[in-house]
Amino acid sequence: MDEKAFQEALRERTKYCDSIVEKWLPRPKSYEKEVIGAANYSVLAGGKRLRPLIMEETGRMYCGRANLREPFLAAIEMIHTYSLIHDDLPAMDNDTLRRGKKTTWAVYGEGMAVIAGDGLLNYAYETALRAFDLADDEEAPRVVHALRVLAKNAGFFGMVGGQCADLLAEKRPAGEVKDDLLTYIHENKTAAMIRSAFQIGAILAGAPEDDVIALGGIADDVGLAFQIQDDILDVEGDAGTLGKSIGKDRAEGKATYVTLHGLDGAKTRVEELTGDALRRLDKLSETSDFLRTLVEHLMTRTR
Amino acid sequence: MDEKAFQEALRERTKYCDSIVEKWLPRPKSYEKEVIGAANYSVLAGGKRLRPLIMEETGRMYCGRANLREPFLAAIEMIHTYSLIHDDLPAMDNDTLRRGKKTTWAVYGEGMAVIAGDGLLNYAYETALRAFDLADDEEAPRVVHALRVLAKNAGFFGMVGGQCADLLAEKRPAGEVKDDLLTYIHENKTAAMIRSAFQIGAILAGAPEDDVIALGGIADDVGLAFQIQDDILDVEGDAGTLGKSIGKDRAEGKATYVTLHGLDGAKTRVEELTGDALRRLDKLSETSDFLRTLVEHLMTRTR
Repeated sequence: MDEKAFQEALRERTKYCDSIVEKWLPRPKSYEKEVIGAANYSVLAGGKRLRPLIMEETGRMYCGRANLREPFLAAIEMIHTYSLIHDDLPAMDNDTLRRGKKTTWAVYGEGMAVIAGDGLLNYAYETALRAFDLADDEEAPRVVHALRVLAKNAGFFGMVGGQCADLLAEKRPAGEVKDDLLTYIHENKTAAMIRSAFQIGAILAGAPEDDVIALGGIADDVGLAFQIQDDILDVEGDAGTLGKSIGKDRAEGKATYVTLHGLDGAKTRVEELTGDALRRLDKLSETSDFLRTLVEHLMTRTR
Repeated sequence: MDEKAFQEALRERTKYCDSIVEKWLPRPKSYEKEVIGAANYSVLAGGKRLRPLIMEETGRMYCGRANLREPFLAAIEMIHTYSLIHDDLPAMDNDTLRRGKKTTWAVYGEGMAVIAGDGLLNYAYETALRAFDLADDEEAPRVVHALRVLAKNAGFFGMVGGQCADLLAEKRPAGEVKDDLLTYIHENKTAAMIRSAFQIGAILAGAPEDDVIALGGIADDVGLAFQIQDDILDVEGDAGTLGKSIGKDRAEGKATYVTLHGLDGAKTRVEELTGDALRRLDKLSETSDFLRTLVEHLMTRTR
């Protein structure tokens, strides 16, 4: 896909994902106004919508129905956003800037940010469950499968497990954090939710099981490359473009792929993983030019 | 049911609920050990298992299958426990004692307590979703219904909404907190999860819809009475028996049913609500001596 066509498609699809995320947001009725306000503030603060974009694309690849996907597109962005709200808390990363705006706790206070995150995680399941209203008899078991994938990758044996390992790694001297721990962190903290995105679109569309499994492997490569690129951007990136603080990892003496393997080693690894993901994408029973180009672009992203 | 038989049944059923909750706990495999340890520490710190007890009982009333209920018994206790872990955080109630033990953050640190709560909430859904493995074709839609009830009552329009109103009420002078706000807090922060317990047992068993609706009304009465009793115990209770700090509400100048209506007014209201709940219980298409006696006992509980 040429650059101009890709950028246009990316803009249009990001706008679509924005509209779906917005459509499914909770609307306050009573005294829950403040906590919903805090949650929606964070969801609407922008972001790349990468997980919904990927899910939408694997759904299209296998000719899935757009409206069955909608609640899951919204749900995965809600889970991603709740994790950011909690990650930014003073007890966690203590960040006050995110996506170019003040973080949720910096605006609404710590207590409200804790329950806004909780509510948003819970609302992700409330939202995804609404897919049962839209599913026919053949699709209902796919919704169950998609729910399981969503839940597993967000939990102890996915994102939360990665956050745990990350918290523990921060307490160790950087020299003691080895490759296997760092890989566990990346595969779980970041790649797990990317895996949900790649697989759920295909699952809801009724893709062949072999393809769903292969998409999981592709997602692992892409997620790992994405996280290493994050580490690279923390060194080389521009705070304005990124919309968040940079140089934090080094300032905190944190072990990253870059501290373990150097900038060149990290860049080589991103290239290898991306190449591997592209080769695997080409072996699927269906193709998507947009998805292929998106994966290529993630390698060179600056935000 | 006479007192001796009830106490024996209560002991035996609490033990059963303990065993189910324990059976479905997450088992760590790798670097997620610490966060799962923090979550399980809190789940295993004891507690009345009131919500699983109620769910088990409405399930038995309508002759539901015990093993289909199991994941939901565990899931509701996980959600209840995650809410306690987060409620105890310094940014929330700042409690160091719970169920007679140090709170999760006091043992594992704030950051770990945040993600232990997150993981436990998420794991509640992972667990409840496993009921699909146990359900036949007739039961699968009941599992979907039960999941929806569980999710709604735990979220923005249930428990989290109640926590939000509670946080806001704490910031106001007690004199400005009126009955409607206090009722909203109690109905959502406490009663919503009790509603899940009453309804889900019945839903999974295939109870008539009229009964499921009636059980919701009973749960609202019981939940409100339970919370007012909590307020009474904060004034009159014994910290040793309760296993938590007392006199906190008054020390913090917090508005409660007791500060608004006095101890006598609060006790009268608990009696009225309990009487109402018992009358409604007697009108259901099935009966449960144990459940009836449990509701009576909640009125006079000391912990």
